[in-house]
Amino acid sequence: MTSPTTYAVVMAGGSGTRFWPASRKARPKQFLPISGGQPMLAETCARLAGLVPLERTLVVTAESQSELVRRTLPGLPRENVLCEPAARNTAPCVAFAAEEIARRAPDALQIVLPADHVIRPLASFQRTLRAALAAAAREDALVIFGVRPDHPATGYGYIEAGATLAELDGLPLYGVTRFVEKPDRARAEQFLAAGKFLWNSGMFVWSTRAIRAALATHAPAITAGLARIAQGETLERVYPQLPSVAIDVAVLEKAANVRMLPIDYGWNDVGSWSALPEVHAPDAQGNWRALSGRARLLAEDARGCVAYAEGDEVIALVGVQDLVVVRAGNATLVCPRARAQDVKKVVERLASEGPEFL
Amino acid sequence: MTSPTTYAVVMAGGSGTRFWPASRKARPKQFLPISGGQPMLAETCARLAGLVPLERTLVVTAESQSELVRRTLPGLPRENVLCEPAARNTAPCVAFAAEEIARRAPDALQIVLPADHVIRPLASFQRTLRAALAAAAREDALVIFGVRPDHPATGYGYIEAGATLAELDGLPLYGVTRFVEKPDRARAEQFLAAGKFLWNSGMFVWSTRAIRAALATHAPAITAGLARIAQGETLERVYPQLPSVAIDVAVLEKAANVRMLPIDYGWNDVGSWSALPEVHAPDAQGNWRALSGRARLLAEDARGCVAYAEGDEVIALVGVQDLVVVRAGNATLVCPRARAQDVKKVVERLASEGPEFL
Repeated sequence: MTSPTTYAVVMAGGSGTRFWPASRKARPKQFLPISGGQPMLAETCARLAGLVPLERTLVVTAESQSELVRRTLPGLPRENVLCEPAARNTAPCVAFAAEEIARRAPDALQIVLPADHVIRPLASFQRTLRAALAAAAREDALVIFGVRPDHPATGYGYIEAGATLAELDGLPLYGVTRFVEKPDRARAEQFLAAGKFLWNSGMFVWSTRAIRAALATHAPAITAGLARIAQGETLERVYPQLPSVAIDVAVLEKAANVRMLPIDYGWNDVGSWSALPEVHAPDAQGNWRALSGRARLLAEDARGCVAYAEGDEVIALVGVQDLVVVRAGNATLVCPRARAQDVKKVVERLASEGPEFL
Repeated sequence: MTSPTTYAVVMAGGSGTRFWPASRKARPKQFLPISGGQPMLAETCARLAGLVPLERTLVVTAESQSELVRRTLPGLPRENVLCEPAARNTAPCVAFAAEEIARRAPDALQIVLPADHVIRPLASFQRTLRAALAAAAREDALVIFGVRPDHPATGYGYIEAGATLAELDGLPLYGVTRFVEKPDRARAEQFLAAGKFLWNSGMFVWSTRAIRAALATHAPAITAGLARIAQGETLERVYPQLPSVAIDVAVLEKAANVRMLPIDYGWNDVGSWSALPEVHAPDAQGNWRALSGRARLLAEDARGCVAYAEGDEVIALVGVQDLVVVRAGNATLVCPRARAQDVKKVVERLASEGPEFL
């Protein structure tokens, strides 16, 4: 038996504001070089090198960002950019891409990834993906990836691992006992101590057949909605009416054939500026340089700072510690690393006080 | 007797770097809106409204800045921009302007001002200037202005006042006992306690006749050098050979006819970013907004900060205190207010590491 074709679905529809002023309405996080020299979307695709070529990669995004997707991935065929007429969370997005792949290659396997994660090292991640593809091919399993926690994070959902059902290339394939919403600190500490709770990474591998069947069973409104398009209704009319729900909630918490592979290496969804030190090595002075183009940092007796700039810019830090300093577009942000969550307050205020800066 | 014509000489040749990144080689402090909405040079001229029109104002500057002077002062006649072929400190500058005024109006009085001070209120300053003009007209005195110290500053030279020789419009006209170099802290405290030591403001009033005579007596090399120009040598050849010396040292410390008027209101030479709180009122959150154009500050739980920006820019400060944050051109500076002197270290490093940012 030849191994089935594999497609990738990269979910690039996010419009996060936690990386303001680098991220803007017109250029969300996935288009930024947060994690290194390339935009996160480009790195996400590069991470599939040798597994899935761009010809079989679909990028699901908002219509307003389709041009930015094409510029970020010049090798991506135009017909591989799927535009959502409205943001409806991940379940409609997964279903939309699954219908498209079903038309092109109904037997294909799928790797479904958010466009804005940092995962290292590459070899470990690809080994996990190959194991997942094997499980998806062999058992029609819906494979999810659980990140082994190293601290009691309260910002992620958790998944309780069940029994080890198989070993794939030395990796345990777990059953799933239950999904748990983001816990409070005390519960997160219990989860960490228990050892069998993993962070829900939001990445998936499955066969096109398996995810379509699961959607039809557990999210029939989505399946039925998309079927109306096959019957002649427009995407623009149907899509905004689909239920806005996460694929985890709509399908994975309910399906019996969900399996989990562990990620016990570097994974980060880079949720705010304060996460940059988790994905960048510090420089010799102990600052983190998130610089692209010819941007420069000049640190004079400054340490513990995160500096982000693009293009022909210089940031000079003198005698400061543990700050986030971001220069992007027509805006500058300065805040302590520990206050990076409060960037959302700035964004909220700008909605009324300065929408031209969003 | 009709009162003599009055000229103003504005010394705008400075190339300070303490306001980097707003001040650049190509745009020093005097061209910046440090003190309010207008460039300091424009405010300096506006401060003479009613006393000296632009037609009788000479601006001495570097050739490279002459165009910037004209743009900053569109009403200034072209022939009133005097270009120094080289920076030679204030004595050659004063002499150069005095020769030019001697050609135009040999009987004129002169008000000689640096282009980059903040002085308030206007009425008090103009009253002092009128008293100085009266003294210069009546006695051919070389009138200097001493700022009554309110703290033991170590950054200024001091002038010890002698006897009160006259009263002019209620202001005491002092003799001068001696000039003192910038003192250390202990001496500065003694000066403050003694009550008769005033800061040397670097502003002067005299008749064209008196300053030319004093230069001829005490700085004959300068007078002789400029005379060679009248005899046909070029300014470009002569000027760079003139001794580089301050007018205080070359002439005023030696001349017998020096008089001093006190300034006991707001005077500030705005020596660094940390001086901005001395010349700006804070906003309701306790931050200082040095914003021009449509620039904006968004402070979220931030206080005690100095924010400078120009044009269509926003600076967002979240949870920080007592910082200087400057956005100008292609550069951003962040440093504690107390470390603003160290901006010069950045400028020194950029000379080798990033001259394109100077």
